[in-house]
Amino acid sequence: MPSEFEVIARYFTVPPVDGADDGVMLGVGDDCTLLSPSPGKRLAVSVDTSVAGVHFPPDAPALAIGHRALAVSLSDLAAMGARPRWCLMSLTLESAEDDWLAKFSQGFLGLCERTGTTLVGGDTTRGRTAIGVTVMGEVDPRAALTRGGAGPGELLAVTGSLGGGAGGLALWQRGERDLDHPLLARYLLPQPRLSAGQALLGLATAAIDISDGLLADLGHLCQRSGVGAELYPHGWPLAAGLGDALGEEGAFQAALSGGDDYELLISLAPRHLVEARKRLASLGVELTVIGELTRETGIRGVASVTHGGWQHFEGAGEPGPGNKDRMP
Amino acid sequence: MPSEFEVIARYFTVPPVDGADDGVMLGVGDDCTLLSPSPGKRLAVSVDTSVAGVHFPPDAPALAIGHRALAVSLSDLAAMGARPRWCLMSLTLESAEDDWLAKFSQGFLGLCERTGTTLVGGDTTRGRTAIGVTVMGEVDPRAALTRGGAGPGELLAVTGSLGGGAGGLALWQRGERDLDHPLLARYLLPQPRLSAGQALLGLATAAIDISDGLLADLGHLCQRSGVGAELYPHGWPLAAGLGDALGEEGAFQAALSGGDDYELLISLAPRHLVEARKRLASLGVELTVIGELTRETGIRGVASVTHGGWQHFEGAGEPGPGNKDRMP
Repeated sequence: MPSEFEVIARYFTVPPVDGADDGVMLGVGDDCTLLSPSPGKRLAVSVDTSVAGVHFPPDAPALAIGHRALAVSLSDLAAMGARPRWCLMSLTLESAEDDWLAKFSQGFLGLCERTGTTLVGGDTTRGRTAIGVTVMGEVDPRAALTRGGAGPGELLAVTGSLGGGAGGLALWQRGERDLDHPLLARYLLPQPRLSAGQALLGLATAAIDISDGLLADLGHLCQRSGVGAELYPHGWPLAAGLGDALGEEGAFQAALSGGDDYELLISLAPRHLVEARKRLASLGVELTVIGELTRETGIRGVASVTHGGWQHFEGAGEPGPGNKDRMP
Repeated sequence: MPSEFEVIARYFTVPPVDGADDGVMLGVGDDCTLLSPSPGKRLAVSVDTSVAGVHFPPDAPALAIGHRALAVSLSDLAAMGARPRWCLMSLTLESAEDDWLAKFSQGFLGLCERTGTTLVGGDTTRGRTAIGVTVMGEVDPRAALTRGGAGPGELLAVTGSLGGGAGGLALWQRGERDLDHPLLARYLLPQPRLSAGQALLGLATAAIDISDGLLADLGHLCQRSGVGAELYPHGWPLAAGLGDALGEEGAFQAALSGGDDYELLISLAPRHLVEARKRLASLGVELTVIGELTRETGIRGVASVTHGGWQHFEGAGEPGPGNKDRMP
């Protein structure tokens, strides 16, 4: 079994690129990493830990575990409209298997590369498999998308489709193992909406990523903004194949209360809808209006559904919907 | 048992201080925290995870566990000469007991307050008790103390005393439980040398914190600096009471190879020794010369001692010396 130094050196040391504008003044290998934040920007930071058997199935493919651990943290940057810059990883493993680590690092570093995120630090420990990821991004302080900017009369819209995370989990639990299956990919290889979040700067008044389920996350947005919401009864963007997988009622429940979708839920003034759709369309991302915000607090229009959402210390410790919506 | 939202709200939400210069533009409660780094400074970041039964005894006092989890990360900032600004905490707990959490947060937030560190984010998960802490500090880019600046002919010196971490662990294993015992306090309530690190800016040529044991950490410093070291046979600053606890030979072994001391090991030119001692004396910190650096690589002068140090994935999973010296 490789030693810890070897684990870091072999799988997670990315050679610095000469002249790269990655803001890393002193990389891995010293007591700290030294970073050079961009002048005039604010630093957006968030941390999430993914635990085997809680946030993902222990026997999920290592590549997916690596990808997913980073993706759920990057999704928080997406929801601020921030551009990702750096991340740190805290890796706890029961053992250090070469094959597993090679795939895991491929998933993690692959997403780093595709999103312009530089891994600048980390540590490894022995224990039940868990991955803690701290992400750091940058955003214009005047434009950052918070949860608190929504106003009554504005539209409520979501990127992409809903329910795919819960649908993929259900398929996994039934034995589906093909990562090319769109729903399984949605659950195990979520794509954080980074470009969409940045494209919505100046248009959206508030944003949150959907990790705990639409209703739960909408509740957070409404609470922080001091508004309520009226959800439309029709026209929801259910993930493709969700009805086949879960049935009609199950699909709608998954869209409302399932976690792990990692889409963006935003508010915006009606006059900005066309421009927002145009910008997102150029990224291949749909934007669907699912309701509007009201002066009266509370969420209405989905009377048959209880206000769900996943909270740890109450869950059963089984793989289930995500758990990202804590302190950032 | 309180829910996760309640855990964060009840124990870790520090009310923002109006007009405080903490650089927090948007605090806990959104997707990310927004921070305002100081112009002209570099950001120094590091992450460390402390796992029950690996890095600290599971039955250690909760206050000590909270303090210690932050202290070991802050020690990395100290070794760069950085001023701590912010931290994020990833907390994994088997259960959320009110009494335990109250003490834990007291230890963690108490050290935050004493060191000027603001907790700006975190998440909580159910699982084997583990605490991941990401620290962020600031340092003048021209003055930061790296491991790579030492040159031959320079002196090798340590702050404070050595062996106290290993001595405290030995006492704990023998049943000592009084946190007022100086050695036990050294092990369970280490005090990161933040002021000393900043005071050494411009004087020390290289620095590292002693977490894996003096010899192991000296090895890192020498490797990064491309030098060797000749250790003096006498005059080592052993922690008070160490000889009584471990015997003469055991005490010297603890000083050389024991982990968890969290002192600074530095190199400096002989002409700067007086000024360095003067600055540290004003902080109540001693600086002891224990050797000098040589052009010839390798560590000499302690022939009876093997080059020790703690590495995970090779350890036995029992509480043992710290594990901080990975990627930052």
